[in-house]
Amino acid sequence: MSEYRAPLKDMRFVLEELIGLEQIARLPQCEEASPDVVAAILEEGGKFAEEVLAPLNRVGDVHGAVWQDGEVKTAPGWKEAYTAFREAGWTALARSPEFGGQGLPKVVATAVMELWKGSNLAFSLCPMLTQGAIEALMLCGSPEQKKMYLPKMVSGEWTGTMNLTEPQAGSDLSAVRTRAEPVGDGTYKLYGQKIFITYGEHDLAENIVHLVLARLPGAPEGVKGISLFVVPKFLVNADGSLGARNDVRCVSIEHKLGIHASPTCVLSFGDHGGAVGTLVGEPNRGLEYMFIMMNEARFAVGLEGLALSERAYQKALSYAKERIQGFEVGVKSGPRVPIIRHPDVRRMLMLMKSQTEAMRALAYTVGAAFDLAHHHPDESVRQRSRGFVELMTPVVKGWCTENSVTIASLGVQVHGGMGFIEETGAAQHYRDARITPIYEGTTAIQSNDLIGRKIARNGGVIARGLIEEMRLAAEKLRAQPGEDFGVLARRLGAGIDALEKGVAYILETYGSNPKAAHAVSVPLLELFGIVCGGWQLGLSALVAAKRLAEGGGDEAFYRAKIGTARFYADHVLARAPALGMTVTEGAAGVLALDEEMF
Amino acid sequence: MSEYRAPLKDMRFVLEELIGLEQIARLPQCEEASPDVVAAILEEGGKFAEEVLAPLNRVGDVHGAVWQDGEVKTAPGWKEAYTAFREAGWTALARSPEFGGQGLPKVVATAVMELWKGSNLAFSLCPMLTQGAIEALMLCGSPEQKKMYLPKMVSGEWTGTMNLTEPQAGSDLSAVRTRAEPVGDGTYKLYGQKIFITYGEHDLAENIVHLVLARLPGAPEGVKGISLFVVPKFLVNADGSLGARNDVRCVSIEHKLGIHASPTCVLSFGDHGGAVGTLVGEPNRGLEYMFIMMNEARFAVGLEGLALSERAYQKALSYAKERIQGFEVGVKSGPRVPIIRHPDVRRMLMLMKSQTEAMRALAYTVGAAFDLAHHHPDESVRQRSRGFVELMTPVVKGWCTENSVTIASLGVQVHGGMGFIEETGAAQHYRDARITPIYEGTTAIQSNDLIGRKIARNGGVIARGLIEEMRLAAEKLRAQPGEDFGVLARRLGAGIDALEKGVAYILETYGSNPKAAHAVSVPLLELFGIVCGGWQLGLSALVAAKRLAEGGGDEAFYRAKIGTARFYADHVLARAPALGMTVTEGAAGVLALDEEMF
Repeated sequence: MSEYRAPLKDMRFVLEELIGLEQIARLPQCEEASPDVVAAILEEGGKFAEEVLAPLNRVGDVHGAVWQDGEVKTAPGWKEAYTAFREAGWTALARSPEFGGQGLPKVVATAVMELWKGSNLAFSLCPMLTQGAIEALMLCGSPEQKKMYLPKMVSGEWTGTMNLTEPQAGSDLSAVRTRAEPVGDGTYKLYGQKIFITYGEHDLAENIVHLVLARLPGAPEGVKGISLFVVPKFLVNADGSLGARNDVRCVSIEHKLGIHASPTCVLSFGDHGGAVGTLVGEPNRGLEYMFIMMNEARFAVGLEGLALSERAYQKALSYAKERIQGFEVGVKSGPRVPIIRHPDVRRMLMLMKSQTEAMRALAYTVGAAFDLAHHHPDESVRQRSRGFVELMTPVVKGWCTENSVTIASLGVQVHGGMGFIEETGAAQHYRDARITPIYEGTTAIQSNDLIGRKIARNGGVIARGLIEEMRLAAEKLRAQPGEDFGVLARRLGAGIDALEKGVAYILETYGSNPKAAHAVSVPLLELFGIVCGGWQLGLSALVAAKRLAEGGGDEAFYRAKIGTARFYADHVLARAPALGMTVTEGAAGVLALDEEMF
Repeated sequence: MSEYRAPLKDMRFVLEELIGLEQIARLPQCEEASPDVVAAILEEGGKFAEEVLAPLNRVGDVHGAVWQDGEVKTAPGWKEAYTAFREAGWTALARSPEFGGQGLPKVVATAVMELWKGSNLAFSLCPMLTQGAIEALMLCGSPEQKKMYLPKMVSGEWTGTMNLTEPQAGSDLSAVRTRAEPVGDGTYKLYGQKIFITYGEHDLAENIVHLVLARLPGAPEGVKGISLFVVPKFLVNADGSLGARNDVRCVSIEHKLGIHASPTCVLSFGDHGGAVGTLVGEPNRGLEYMFIMMNEARFAVGLEGLALSERAYQKALSYAKERIQGFEVGVKSGPRVPIIRHPDVRRMLMLMKSQTEAMRALAYTVGAAFDLAHHHPDESVRQRSRGFVELMTPVVKGWCTENSVTIASLGVQVHGGMGFIEETGAAQHYRDARITPIYEGTTAIQSNDLIGRKIARNGGVIARGLIEEMRLAAEKLRAQPGEDFGVLARRLGAGIDALEKGVAYILETYGSNPKAAHAVSVPLLELFGIVCGGWQLGLSALVAAKRLAEGGGDEAFYRAKIGTARFYADHVLARAPALGMTVTEGAAGVLALDEEMF
């Protein structure tokens, strides 16, 4: 079986040549992120991913996490890998030095996260959820809560979870019923059941810090009556040592299509007198706080789409180079050839490669904008970057994860019959990928966020700003000589036109005919992703052309960047005008049938 | 869990109203297929599918087939179900009365086959492979072979297999190495290993009749040196009773992503002295004969795409109607609603429904053309119909199966987090569907067949004939009043234009630049499928409009037909022009990178 190779060359191309890491390293609090330091970090991370995490990916799939009597045992080798992971300091990479973190920029953390998710998705979920919990406590926790939890969470000795979903409350959190009763000493007792809790119970760490949505007595109905609580698995004594086992139990774990090694828990709070917790921030603002974690997590799940696509591509590519089958097209005799010589295998690989590179460029660019939004000295840059991050978060989440499903599916197809055999490993990616467009908000939830909060609420100002920026890139492509750039400019221009009309349609209908706007919100999200991907690959091709003109670099690498962009233009970006038509004309069809006509 | 319901209403709509079953029943040898008789058969078949096969679908997935010491045990209940299946006469439905069959037309057998594949795909593979083997023996077997094997195979007492693939010879059958040595008494001894043999060993029937590709001593290299042999699991005595166990063993079965209940066998021939077989037809013509089975099987696998899509759709629809979650779009208060009220859920269901109906209409139309090709008194009709069947076989196989993967994926998505839980059942369809674009020839193999044998070889005459026929339908749509029909006419017209250009591109390049033609053959196949689907839904909408104008029918049903076609036009058929551009302009991008640049 082929193993995962950290795609360092392409990562560094995006970080150094496309985004310009030195720009980020000039920002206050980001000074440490010099290209050399970042390259060394990626090198180390890549080694860890390749040597420790990747070999456990199939082990985890086969063994899964095992529940027994309320405890969850992770797969063989997982505990040792997690210990090595936190001892190497990977959990602390992007966290504030105040709590023991290394304070590296988001864009660097983004690239590093891709390594974990690409090498072992099921493993990566544990640190990812912990990061989200840290973020929420950092921003909303009391000084006592921060002191009690953050250092151990940043060090990875304790992990964190997000407890949102209940059986009757999936995407609709207003239906949450878990209740929290004040004890009188500043603590609360929680009662209720939460489902789909990732790493809600496991044996990797000493303690698990649950962040839990619950209702206080007399709280308003709906989303405005939900508060956030921190409920540790083991209570924490004043001196920081572990105290009594809290009244939260894992009553079962799910039998899932994929990510078998990541325990998806049903947690029961308060079956034996109440689970002790403390309130985070103010009462009834829980959902707002949870969204802090959720936006982190949504972006991170978008990276999963990218990372799984990279992994599936590597696997398919390696098989396509090794597997000898058939003769070259147009040649009747001669030796049999590796299947990468067959044009349709080439087409599938190019679909995988080009979309993966487009996703990486876009996701890292969003990561860099996150740093600009936080650290740039100029308020207008901060504001513009914040707008871009907000607009792009649902796009990165929705587009990259939906792509990963089709890309993992292509990965199986490249393998032919062998792809359907579990031992080959391609099928695991196909199974694992399927959760990514669902958890942390389905694609429809992302698209609702996109058309509502991110477009309609600001009158489309941010989207139009992005469209203008993309038009400048199309201009540059047009000015570049050569057929490839002509095609790129034309397709990107047509894509931007389609997107502009799509955004205008949403602005027109969101208030007056919200059903129509929502009926085409997912096609709009897909359109957004495809066009932004084309924009990023277009910029990459421009960088490559410059390097080629300068000479002396890795010529094949830069020529591949241009060829890959060209492929994307004709096979992916070409879909944009059709998607645009679906957005502006497709709502009637969605709503054509009455419910009873189905 | 929702159960499978035979989609009899829609099946009968296609058979009776779209195709016109009475036309088929007027053909010689098809007289028994009156609408009443066919309706009764479908009713019975639907009952069997719903009551016997569907409940075993998950049982089979969970238990799988189990190999032990060369024997394969099917899942609990499977043997009883198979016995009931053959006793009810379902194996003999479309077979010649000469060998105990009922001789019903292909179009009826097509609808009945959808029932088996929709209710239990893994089960259906056993009779399907048997049908292919029967077909090959009927057409190429000697009188003795026919007498020895066909009655028992038609009755289902014995089953059949296709033994093509070897470890080094997947899609490339020219690499087959299994050898057959003449004994001198008219029999042969076979030696070699075959892989991916569906139902190569099982406990459902008394005997298994293997059709095996192998090489005779001194046979030419490549595909022209392959002969076809019949090798039974148990030798058959002159009186028809079972004799000695033959030297063919199942040495293992595969651990697969899906269709767990269908044993995928590694068969070893001749480990203990040679497996006894007889030659089918003439030496070195094996591949040609195997293609007879393969074309049957390819069409049948296309039906799997349709049937799985129907099943996934039913499951998603039932969940969407039951699952209460969130509020209606644009309504801030009021009761929570079933998720089918949410526009994006509606969009996903419409994608599933409209494409499923398009596939059914197209596949059944091809089934009917098969009957016309065989039985119509007018040679020109027979010839035209044969051309249509040949052109459409790779399209039905490739397009319907690729669709089933995305439709099963949508089915998971409609279920949200529950879709990822195996017990829900949606995930099984996603896993099962994934094999369909691979076996019996991958989509690339289908598309090679399409552009080579089915388009280039005849100078595009057959494709152009179909295009003309579709243009007539577009004309009729244009003449029909109402916005829906205007949109349908416009989109179908644009789709046909794109297809025409795509076909012209293939004709131009197939000889002069075969790599370019092959580089875009799969997009062309997809374009073919999408446009033909639009044509069929357009015709369905015209039938519906006529019925609505006449009055008195099921108004909601016919209005739904028009609404579904409208949705398809804006969400699926709208993609055709972009696909057309990918076909005519996309080859350069596919071939842009040298092999070492990947």
